[in-house]
Amino acid sequence: MAVYTEVPDEELEALLERYGLGTLVSAKGIAEGVENSNYLLRTTEGTYILTLYEKRVDPKDLPFFLGLMDHLAAKGLPCPKVLHDRDGKALQTLAGRPAALISFLDGIWPKKIKTFHCGEVGKALAGLHLAGQDFSMTRKNSLSLDGWDTLVKSCRDHADSVEPGLKSLIEDELAHLQSVWPKDLPIGVCHADLFQDNVFFLGEKLSGIIDFYFACTDLLSYDLAICLNAWCFERDRSFNVTKARLLLNGYAGVRPISRAEVAALPTLARGSALRFLLTRLYDWINCPPGAMVVKKDPLEYRDYLRFHQGVGSAAAYGLA
Amino acid sequence: MAVYTEVPDEELEALLERYGLGTLVSAKGIAEGVENSNYLLRTTEGTYILTLYEKRVDPKDLPFFLGLMDHLAAKGLPCPKVLHDRDGKALQTLAGRPAALISFLDGIWPKKIKTFHCGEVGKALAGLHLAGQDFSMTRKNSLSLDGWDTLVKSCRDHADSVEPGLKSLIEDELAHLQSVWPKDLPIGVCHADLFQDNVFFLGEKLSGIIDFYFACTDLLSYDLAICLNAWCFERDRSFNVTKARLLLNGYAGVRPISRAEVAALPTLARGSALRFLLTRLYDWINCPPGAMVVKKDPLEYRDYLRFHQGVGSAAAYGLA
Repeated sequence: MAVYTEVPDEELEALLERYGLGTLVSAKGIAEGVENSNYLLRTTEGTYILTLYEKRVDPKDLPFFLGLMDHLAAKGLPCPKVLHDRDGKALQTLAGRPAALISFLDGIWPKKIKTFHCGEVGKALAGLHLAGQDFSMTRKNSLSLDGWDTLVKSCRDHADSVEPGLKSLIEDELAHLQSVWPKDLPIGVCHADLFQDNVFFLGEKLSGIIDFYFACTDLLSYDLAICLNAWCFERDRSFNVTKARLLLNGYAGVRPISRAEVAALPTLARGSALRFLLTRLYDWINCPPGAMVVKKDPLEYRDYLRFHQGVGSAAAYGLA
Repeated sequence: MAVYTEVPDEELEALLERYGLGTLVSAKGIAEGVENSNYLLRTTEGTYILTLYEKRVDPKDLPFFLGLMDHLAAKGLPCPKVLHDRDGKALQTLAGRPAALISFLDGIWPKKIKTFHCGEVGKALAGLHLAGQDFSMTRKNSLSLDGWDTLVKSCRDHADSVEPGLKSLIEDELAHLQSVWPKDLPIGVCHADLFQDNVFFLGEKLSGIIDFYFACTDLLSYDLAICLNAWCFERDRSFNVTKARLLLNGYAGVRPISRAEVAALPTLARGSALRFLLTRLYDWINCPPGAMVVKKDPLEYRDYLRFHQGVGSAAAYGLA
């Protein structure tokens, strides 16, 4: 629901001029992404997405995000291409904000996740991990183990006011994960936010992956665990093992999962559940009234966490 | 900033099937209009706007709004064409809401109003009034004189908490307008909400008029007075008489303004200022925290009202 910054007409026209993208025909603010302002632009040459980076995005990270999209698109991944102006520049300043112009991707994100979506997502995530292997830049995941500690400290005093018992659940889980978090698993480029609204489909075929603004360098299997949480729970918070099996097998068919990665999956899934529980809790507590954002229920991820706490091995996710 | 209702994928596909509009390629919620949910749809056949009517729109009014767009578009006005399904139906039900599919109009609404915009808007409004003359349906303007009385009653007890003195300003103005409101001026189809975000331009040419969901049958010159307020004040709330002259002369060149209409303009402009002051005040007082709407400052229209209170005749608007 994101259009926070309005762009003066002249600035928009001057921008398109610098890219040689023809004359502006239409500009619509679109409800895509939560962190940034996004405009769908149509010019006499084509259709593009203009993103203005709002305050949650650190401008220092933008070369990584844009460089990664460039890299992945060049490898044929269905992600947006970053456009460069006549001087080769991708990162612009518009209405006082960092901004970039990227290609428009056809496709619709699935409002209701079906089993076939999960297999496609698994394959695409593995493809992204392989394509990212020779990407030269790195970015620390600020929302992994170290970041959780900071988040817990900032939220815990309010946690029980959201739900009694939440504080100790979070503190105990953090202590557990700190003691068992895997260290020797393969590391690489992670999307780290591959939720259903970031994946487009045309019919049953995946046509696009968007929103690389949480991308980072982390355990590849942690990225997979994020998808287990994002794609395999039903709306009633029950876990659909058919979806999980399709997701994991789709992934493993493209990038084999090692024994160590399989063994770590329940821990990684707990970590991923804690991560989204914490950020949603943080937003829940800190979101000012009147902010134009739909607050997401942190307790959804509390329930996911409890599910994974009860999991003995990755067999529970449908892996043979 | 308007996407209140999400449409299930299957319902959207079934809808397009009923219209024979090809296969869905993209669907984006767009930040257009405040009252309804709007989606920009791209199919293999073309680009369309899907509107879901939210609770502020009375479903009984929809045949008037859709019929009016049909009527005006058939007369060549640059307004959206209403699409009809294979059974000839325009009004649909989607995600439990009334919905309609209309054509997409090229153009950009001006973020900053320049003088040339005002001449174009005047001409287009007069064209709309002429084209509406033989439209057979009517709709009472619930936000004209009678409606203000109701609005004042619902707001006045909170008015002074927004700004001291606002209550008496409003009550006195309502009493004045009730005593002098003109009755014998030409009546017809009014847009009644022709603000800058409802008018598209391609370069210096007006390319589209949208959002007919306040359209009604009322004094044509009242519609013109709404535009005086919407287009001729600067951001510092000063009145730009060059813009007003261009607007009025643009209008009069297409549909002559009678002496009686000219004489009534200051009163009509006061009425229009009170109308938007009251609805904004109502929203200001009643908007729940967390609603995804940018609240508009009611005091902007208090200042416009004060300007018109000081106007002796339409000469102040640049009319000879």
